[in-house]
Amino acid sequence: MRPSTALKTDHYELTMLQAALRSGAAHRRSVFEVFARRLPAGRRYGVVAGTGRLLEALEDFRFGPEEIAHLESLGVFDAATLDFLRDFRFSGDIYGYAEGEAYFPNSPILIVESTFAEACILETLVLSILNHDSAIASAAARMTVAAGTRPCIEMGSRRTHEDAAVAAARAAVIAGFASTSNLEAGRDYGLKTTGTAAHSFTLLHDSEEAAFRAQVATLGAGTSLLVDTYDVEQGIRTAVKVAGPELGAIRLDSGDLVTQAGWARELLDSLGNERTGIVVTSDLDEYAIAALASAPVTAYGVGTKLVTGSGAPTSSMVYKLVARENEDGEWVSVAKKAKDKVSVGGRKYALRRLDERGIATAEVVGVGHRPEGDHNDRPLLTQLVTGGEIVREATGAEGVRRAAERFRRSLAELPVAYTRLTEGEPVIPTVLED
Amino acid sequence: MRPSTALKTDHYELTMLQAALRSGAAHRRSVFEVFARRLPAGRRYGVVAGTGRLLEALEDFRFGPEEIAHLESLGVFDAATLDFLRDFRFSGDIYGYAEGEAYFPNSPILIVESTFAEACILETLVLSILNHDSAIASAAARMTVAAGTRPCIEMGSRRTHEDAAVAAARAAVIAGFASTSNLEAGRDYGLKTTGTAAHSFTLLHDSEEAAFRAQVATLGAGTSLLVDTYDVEQGIRTAVKVAGPELGAIRLDSGDLVTQAGWARELLDSLGNERTGIVVTSDLDEYAIAALASAPVTAYGVGTKLVTGSGAPTSSMVYKLVARENEDGEWVSVAKKAKDKVSVGGRKYALRRLDERGIATAEVVGVGHRPEGDHNDRPLLTQLVTGGEIVREATGAEGVRRAAERFRRSLAELPVAYTRLTEGEPVIPTVLED
Repeated sequence: MRPSTALKTDHYELTMLQAALRSGAAHRRSVFEVFARRLPAGRRYGVVAGTGRLLEALEDFRFGPEEIAHLESLGVFDAATLDFLRDFRFSGDIYGYAEGEAYFPNSPILIVESTFAEACILETLVLSILNHDSAIASAAARMTVAAGTRPCIEMGSRRTHEDAAVAAARAAVIAGFASTSNLEAGRDYGLKTTGTAAHSFTLLHDSEEAAFRAQVATLGAGTSLLVDTYDVEQGIRTAVKVAGPELGAIRLDSGDLVTQAGWARELLDSLGNERTGIVVTSDLDEYAIAALASAPVTAYGVGTKLVTGSGAPTSSMVYKLVARENEDGEWVSVAKKAKDKVSVGGRKYALRRLDERGIATAEVVGVGHRPEGDHNDRPLLTQLVTGGEIVREATGAEGVRRAAERFRRSLAELPVAYTRLTEGEPVIPTVLED
Repeated sequence: MRPSTALKTDHYELTMLQAALRSGAAHRRSVFEVFARRLPAGRRYGVVAGTGRLLEALEDFRFGPEEIAHLESLGVFDAATLDFLRDFRFSGDIYGYAEGEAYFPNSPILIVESTFAEACILETLVLSILNHDSAIASAAARMTVAAGTRPCIEMGSRRTHEDAAVAAARAAVIAGFASTSNLEAGRDYGLKTTGTAAHSFTLLHDSEEAAFRAQVATLGAGTSLLVDTYDVEQGIRTAVKVAGPELGAIRLDSGDLVTQAGWARELLDSLGNERTGIVVTSDLDEYAIAALASAPVTAYGVGTKLVTGSGAPTSSMVYKLVARENEDGEWVSVAKKAKDKVSVGGRKYALRRLDERGIATAEVVGVGHRPEGDHNDRPLLTQLVTGGEIVREATGAEGVRRAAERFRRSLAELPVAYTRLTEGEPVIPTVLED
């Protein structure tokens, strides 16, 4: 049995539950909505990721004897609250943007319909997963778009929390990355893992040549040899000498990559290694990738900037109560009043408005009703959980595969300005229909 | 049994292992060092965190049948490599800066002494944990220093990966935070957890007064009431009406907090609630906390900016081979040559040079030898693992408690400029002694 996810929850979710159980309001039917008031500064779109992981985590959201014992030990929670939690299985409905979908400010990314009690206690877990994974996917998308047809390799595990690393690899592949260095992500989500050697491997040996020979002996000539430990030109010559014309690739991890890739290509060609690729790494982000577009590069290895969201390490998604029953069982739209944190009350429905060529022109969000679409418009909310039952194809390796396909289709539908890395407005407006 | 951490590892660590096993160099005694070439831009010190978590993760770094089966399925690893991994238990020595200690550029934060094979495969896990946790602790330190004697409450779980959230709470408490909202961090590390209610709880009820009554009924008058769902002044009046003079605190989560805290204090006092505190939240960072120093605030709740490292979501720590045996069993210092990524070869020793008043004046790092200290100097490297055996008091709740104490002592020793939030140089220089 996988570990429980139930305590990955803010203390106040459970004190709210307790107070609402006491007042009786806990059982009111409620609608919570996840949305972002804005994209990170200057971004033109965001990418939803984490949905599949969230559904997996929801399955494991149970308060077993150890979780209950911990809560009891705090001396805060009464018997009614602990009894509720002991029996808790989410039994409501969840709708959401399918994973891989582009999103915009005020897109209703996830909608949770259940009693207040059931929806309230999911808040922290829902936001943790969606905020993190969407931040990574949104950054990854800019990188893979900048890379065009050249593959991007995710190698940022060492720059983020060891479990966030697994989720980051998954989110990166959804947003177009070809592979990851992270073995756990490979196991958990069926991702392709890659990697060859670091500088320490060369330094371990008595010479660069000895290191290259050792690597080729076990990984074959098709491997990538890291050539910048000592002198790049000599490194390339040694690599070709050791591996021959079948050398898979060289890797450059320092210096001016544009210039180096240029003369490395010429040198490789002059040595008869026209088919040997050039992999570049070294603090790449979407701007560095774009700057390398005209350089003869085969693949990009991206680490730090990917797993830190390239300047936006979290999305600013929030989880708000937007509608609930009153004591007469009638639905009431609700929203708080703070001027600096505007929320729009009411159950939302969303579609992407498409023109006759299939290009998106607006995110249409109906407040309290389904917006009227024409035949080109595409509904965005899919049902992810029905009466507590999770839609299976959204999870695991299959979920990632589908999300990566969906990502490609969703971006292909956006106005071409989505490819711009310069700061600007979202490529389509969000239109709220009352 | 806790889950294995062994696959939280980059693919290339294991292909390097395989190639080094093939060449025979895998068994050479080696020294790897963790250090940061620089602090985040403008920071004056960093704080080491993650050490205790790393030691726990090291205990669980084993390749069980499932991990081996996954590696076999990749078709990359040979029998010798899989055999090595199947039997793997780290058997070397690890020295490091104790958790909670301040660090500077080129401080030798962790030193791993073992065969190349054993040290190589730990790289990803070591860096993931130290880079993440130190980034959070380093940001948290600036916040708690700015807050002075007022408590900081960690509430950022929803803005980061759900497991990173637990580690972030732990790192925050090491760096002076008083409590966290994260229940799992509370369970795992004995941290105090706190929290009361969100806007959704008020919106759930038919009136703010009904919500406050429900909360006070179950949490007592000493609770914190969130007063900015509708109108702050009315919210405060209602809170006092419901909870009386014993109301623990009000919470403000929007608007101009400096101004609001001022008149909220006057209003509370005028209503006879002199002892009621004012907790502020809403995108606080160290600068906002400093700006609130003269406002009548009781406690700060910090979320997003804490868990994202306040602009520096990762430390830039690297794990480099600095020395190894040659074929004659003699030690050789090693370092790569890239001009833009300088490393200094050789086993390091470190002490903090203190003046006669006990104030730090330099980080002295001996390269290949112990620097000569005088009686005031304080050695910085402690042994964390001896022949594979982990020093127990560095882990678990006890590890956090000791690290938090050490953090206070370590900062008290720094030149007073460490309290400045403006950009500047590290408060002490790092002196490398050849």
